Amino acid sequence: MVKPRNPIMVDEAINKVMRHKWEAETELVSLENCDLRRLAAPFIATHNIPFFHKSPYDGFAIRAEDTKYSTDEDPVVFEVIDYIGAGQLPRNELGEGQATRIMTGAKIPQGANCVVMLEDCYTYQKDGIHYMELAKKMEENQNIIKEGSELAKGTLLVDRGAIINPGIKALLATFGYHQVEVIKKPLIGVIATGTELLEPDEDLESGKIYNSNAYMILSQIKRAGGDPSYYGKLDDDVTSSYSRIKRVLQEVDILITTGGVSVGDFDLMPELYNMLGATTLFNKVAMRPGSVTTVAVKGKKLLFGLSGNPSACYVGFELFVRPMIRGIMHQKNVCMKRVKAKLDDDFPKMNPYTRYVRGQLSYQGRELYVQLAGIDHSNVVSSLAYTTCLIEIPGGKEKYEKGDELEVLLLEDMEGQANFR
Amino acid sequence: MVKPRNPIMVDEAINKVMRHKWEAETELVSLENCDLRRLAAPFIATHNIPFFHKSPYDGFAIRAEDTKYSTDEDPVVFEVIDYIGAGQLPRNELGEGQATRIMTGAKIPQGANCVVMLEDCYTYQKDGIHYMELAKKMEENQNIIKEGSELAKGTLLVDRGAIINPGIKALLATFGYHQVEVIKKPLIGVIATGTELLEPDEDLESGKIYNSNAYMILSQIKRAGGDPSYYGKLDDDVTSSYSRIKRVLQEVDILITTGGVSVGDFDLMPELYNMLGATTLFNKVAMRPGSVTTVAVKGKKLLFGLSGNPSACYVGFELFVRPMIRGIMHQKNVCMKRVKAKLDDDFPKMNPYTRYVRGQLSYQGRELYVQLAGIDHSNVVSSLAYTTCLIEIPGGKEKYEKGDELEVLLLEDMEGQANFR
Repeated sequence: MVKPRNPIMVDEAINKVMRHKWEAETELVSLENCDLRRLAAPFIATHNIPFFHKSPYDGFAIRAEDTKYSTDEDPVVFEVIDYIGAGQLPRNELGEGQATRIMTGAKIPQGANCVVMLEDCYTYQKDGIHYMELAKKMEENQNIIKEGSELAKGTLLVDRGAIINPGIKALLATFGYHQVEVIKKPLIGVIATGTELLEPDEDLESGKIYNSNAYMILSQIKRAGGDPSYYGKLDDDVTSSYSRIKRVLQEVDILITTGGVSVGDFDLMPELYNMLGATTLFNKVAMRPGSVTTVAVKGKKLLFGLSGNPSACYVGFELFVRPMIRGIMHQKNVCMKRVKAKLDDDFPKMNPYTRYVRGQLSYQGRELYVQLAGIDHSNVVSSLAYTTCLIEIPGGKEKYEKGDELEVLLLEDMEGQANFR
Repeated sequence: MVKPRNPIMVDEAINKVMRHKWEAETELVSLENCDLRRLAAPFIATHNIPFFHKSPYDGFAIRAEDTKYSTDEDPVVFEVIDYIGAGQLPRNELGEGQATRIMTGAKIPQGANCVVMLEDCYTYQKDGIHYMELAKKMEENQNIIKEGSELAKGTLLVDRGAIINPGIKALLATFGYHQVEVIKKPLIGVIATGTELLEPDEDLESGKIYNSNAYMILSQIKRAGGDPSYYGKLDDDVTSSYSRIKRVLQEVDILITTGGVSVGDFDLMPELYNMLGATTLFNKVAMRPGSVTTVAVKGKKLLFGLSGNPSACYVGFELFVRPMIRGIMHQKNVCMKRVKAKLDDDFPKMNPYTRYVRGQLSYQGRELYVQLAGIDHSNVVSSLAYTTCLIEIPGGKEKYEKGDELEVLLLEDMEGQANFR
């Protein structure tokens, strides 16, 4: 018996999924291996930057008050008492009439309150003593980078959930983190269904097709930040499929299946959800492709039943699984970034439902344009290669023309946004 | 003796570097681990898609000519001789007055030339034989997806050097590649210089700063697609530094150093390049920050001497090292993608040189905007965290204001472009 399905809107479907969000635990990784991981805690400056008053120039540290009467005609002479390279510490406190040779970035010695640039100084040696002559006046604090002037201890640098990029990694190093607390990647299992499917290491035979969806999803999981694991293919037998799914569900945080959700003779997943005692959140979404996307929940674990059709599978993942993975990983911006773009092709298709069409974003001047990424037959996989966004084509209108403005969802962007709209 | 340095333009500097491009070897990786790797060869469809004539619907495969006289009043009756599930092969050739029950995606049996949708058929059983009644006419080839109609064997799918995304991975699976020939990542060594540097696992002490540049570069190398390796810090001793660098250079394809390139007492790299017999391509670039960026070549190996200043180091990497890494990895679009954006902040700084300022890209409607990513003091590392692009601020003009249009270089984009401008 096939039960009628009531389609729900995409927004509502995302909300239903996100209500089951939980937050992943954290783990320590080495600084070297933290790239693209998510920060587990707000990143706060643990010391002042700079950590000490420092010199922006090669030159001499002196007391400004000693230059009060210095003029071109009557330069003031300092005795050079110390030499501080970068990373070296001043050995001597500086007194009246004394100067310390100082390198860029080095710590200002006690007693000094300004730095004279090397090119303003005339140096000489007499009786084994080094002298520096200065023919100008200086002010207190001149050419001194004050402790904490770049960054005060306690400043919030980056929020929790931020994806570690080269800049954040540099900051982590700056504050001496050789280990970084990051969010554990949720473990996401993928299972394919369909007797027609061959694995890529099998020989092609007539009547069969290679399983491409599972590998595509594994890659989409990585892009979204999760840790994918492929569990192979279910056979048609409900009993063995049930025990297989039940076992896999113990090992993973989220289980994605592809295929077996349409209304048809061999459609497996609805029955398996029942047997598992999982609650179906929805089994039809008012969109194309991917209308048969089904999501169920069993305890804390989500089961995403994506379509067996490559495009529908791709879209279903990005709309519903991506936000969940990002949410679990403490990110605020769980949804894809939505921008406007001018359509660079005609889209003459009759379109009663909202469609998510594979697009390729481009820039002309400072404006965004979007092209259809190849033929958008839902069963053609080749255009997915060039897809960098999904074009949202609202239902109801007959057709869209080149030059029309539409909203698109960015797939390669890492920033995202908090809500779907 | 400090030799005078002649600054060259950024474009010229990139060209000088790229003249030493070579192409990396290839290697086989498993389909599961090919994400974000670069394809080593043009990816060509090795068979037709679909691989056989197939049905787009659940229904019955029949001969169109048998429906010639079929009407509402006088439907034609077929004997159902076979049942083909997806992935199953037709067992029987179909003759006059015969029908084969067929599932979506299944192979059209010999003899059939159209498919009737299930909902158009009335089925019944009599004396153990299955019958199907049809009250409409069909045409030859109706509802048949022809072999090769989605993708013909021999079609170029994706070019050499393309970065494997979920769509390309799906395509690889579609053509049964369980192993993928990808381009070997160039091995890139990083060495820091500077006695003031502490490693992140050391305790902070006055006068010293943590080494952040090396870790930042390691992350930038990963983002550009290379394989980074950190070789620690050089000490001030020229002889030991020389033998260290010489040894590292045998292990890596490219060597990046940070620091030691300015004109100053402890500036090490120019001397080491001399000792190595490396040819300096340039040692000053007409830009800020990063004007002291130095690039030398020794045989096939490039030595990038980046500034010790975090911003200068960051910019120097993206402008000069990134294109080299991408070029070695057979990519045509070696440079960062350049787009136009409206400045969302004032930039009142006096600006005699072309500057590359850290920016954060944003979208308003379908237009691109760019904000300054924090304070742009060249020694402030914190704004790097939010940097998603470099704003190119041409030299010569006094200041730029909010609303001015400028060109920006995208850092997170993977597409890139062939030339710098």
